[in-house]
Amino acid sequence: MKKFQILVIGNNDNGCTPELEKIAYETGIEIAKSNSILITGGLGGVMKAASKGAKESGGLTVGIIPQNDMSEANEFCDVVIPSGIGLMRDFLNALSADGVIAIGGGAGTLSEICAAYMYSKPIVVLKNSGGTSTKFADQYLDHRKNVKIVGVETPKEAVELIFKEIKSR
Amino acid sequence: MKKFQILVIGNNDNGCTPELEKIAYETGIEIAKSNSILITGGLGGVMKAASKGAKESGGLTVGIIPQNDMSEANEFCDVVIPSGIGLMRDFLNALSADGVIAIGGGAGTLSEICAAYMYSKPIVVLKNSGGTSTKFADQYLDHRKNVKIVGVETPKEAVELIFKEIKSR
Amino acid sequence: MKKFQILVIGNNDNGCTPELEKIAYETGIEIAKSNSILITGGLGGVMKAASKGAKESGGLTVGIIPQNDMSEANEFCDVVIPSGIGLMRDFLNALSADGVIAIGGGAGTLSEICAAYMYSKPIVVLKNSGGTSTKFADQYLDHRKNVKIVGVETPKEAVELIFKEIKSR
Amino acid sequence: MKKFQILVIGNNDNGCTPELEKIAYETGIEIAKSNSILITGGLGGVMKAASKGAKESGGLTVGIIPQNDMSEANEFCDVVIPSGIGLMRDFLNALSADGVIAIGGGAGTLSEICAAYMYSKPIVVLKNSGGTSTKFADQYLDHRKNVKIVGVETPKEAVELIFKEIKSR
Repeated sequence: MKKFQILVIGNNDNGCTPELEKIAYETGIEIAKSNSILITGGLGGVMKAASKGAKESGGLTVGIIPQNDMSEANEFCDVVIPSGIGLMRDFLNALSADGVIAIGGGAGTLSEICAAYMYSKPIVVLKNSGGTSTKFADQYLDHRKNVKIVGVETPKEAVELIFKEIKSR
Repeated sequence: MKKFQILVIGNNDNGCTPELEKIAYETGIEIAKSNSILITGGLGGVMKAASKGAKESGGLTVGIIPQNDMSEANEFCDVVIPSGIGLMRDFLNALSADGVIAIGGGAGTLSEICAAYMYSKPIVVLKNSGGTSTKFADQYLDHRKNVKIVGVETPKEAVELIFKEIKSR
Repeated sequence: MKKFQILVIGNNDNGCTPELEKIAYETGIEIAKSNSILITGGLGGVMKAASKGAKESGGLTVGIIPQNDMSEANEFCDVVIPSGIGLMRDFLNALSADGVIAIGGGAGTLSEICAAYMYSKPIVVLKNSGGTSTKFADQYLDHRKNVKIVGVETPKEAVELIFKEIKSR
Repeated sequence: MKKFQILVIGNNDNGCTPELEKIAYETGIEIAKSNSILITGGLGGVMKAASKGAKESGGLTVGIIPQNDMSEANEFCDVVIPSGIGLMRDFLNALSADGVIAIGGGAGTLSEICAAYMYSKPIVVLKNSGGTSTKFADQYLDHRKNVKIVGVETPKEAVELIFKEIKSR
């Protein structure tokens, strides 16, 4: 059976902290342990830490980057999709996800949450991660009420909830 | 000299109200009177009302739609760009703007604001229009402080402020 | 009634000749005289010459460029769509066309013809313009026989044929 | 070290033959045996047969599809990227490739070859596979002479040549 594809989003190098990287790293480990494929934006910060965690636990990692050139991806991506569409790749990430886990983040992360919401994908947010994404924990993004963004406390809880949500569809 | 391209964003048919349409219509008129080109997402609701206002005042209107087929655009678009990239066209809209005016809106409008913010475009929000966009009036979207989203009271003020901001760059 | 949007494709600065520019310039004039909107890739060579011709004859010109920044377009574009999707914008051009006129060109022009063919748009090729596009004059691109690429002798004939073809649909 | 990503392109269900499927299947096997990742457009015909071959030989397969919905991919894709950009995904495929192998094909395959050529990726064509791609065997696509498209006789030769070409860069 096709493995689930879990997208982890959050700060790039700029704006990331050791705390966020730790959460992302642990989330990557949990995704690998769940036998899912990790999708990220393939760059630094949260994306790199999650990919490192997944790789070290034997998981498969995919990085969808804004640039044209594969070498721009971090070294923990098994598969690199150099999209060549710049920031629009945020929407490509969302489309490639069975479920989305947000860790901190700014405007880019928020645009990915908007995309995931419009495509009706399950979304969880690490509540203690700060950043733009946490403002929408336990809320709907708009009047359409496509999906409720669920706030969670730990990476383990995040992956469990995403799994439960995906399977219930 | 190249005319400015002003993007108006907000609710599609679903979620639009006569009040929002009135604001959008007047914004379209102001944009035409300023001798600028109106860019919209080319569909219904705010997009259609703004295009109608601009057309009736002799302005030029461009609709960038998600679909492959020009006929999906509203009838007030002089130029139609059928992008074929679905919701990603929100980013195309933002890139095509010298400045952005938000009227109400939900997750799609918010993703366009995120895009415009990341591309550092001037953004104003009609404060009394409700919707997701107004939550960010007079704020920065994230720690990078690319551009402050400015809340305004009227369409006239919106266009004046956008013009001032574009010219100051 | 909505004006037709005619796409002119061909060599960028690199590979263009004064002869090709003359053909492109005259094609731009014919498109303006037909009261249609000229769409191009917004850069140099054939794109620039066609836009110049159309502008000087009072036409409306749209340039859809690969880059993020409007200022990369040539100065004869009334409307600029900075697509931010690199060479993929060839497909955006094709989608934005009611009909396509090819003048010389290389691999980029050929990819636009492929796109226009797959979207079943009328395509004419200036037979004496050389380049990759002319290899397919009076042929179908593949077994599906979506549209026959028609070879013509002059810009005037090109616009007339495209008009006839669009109206017959 | 990062594994190479080899793109296989060619006819979708429409226009495919048992002969082409056999070549594609064997190409998939060779790619898996070379320890590379197979990239395809994720749909039927050549794409499906190549993916089947690679999967049965223990390889990793990625399908980049035009649609929004993962379930549109064939069942032999380990990773699915539902691009949501329609036929423009041909360019995404080309960007995601370290090298390209063409088997038969029509206008879509030709547009992928154009893209790969513009991005200067190594390209080989199975000479006996018929279709549009073979017309360009042992030729440059245009005056820029980015890469020579090399005609080969067998899947084994195709993969060997692509490897040699990638490594020489």
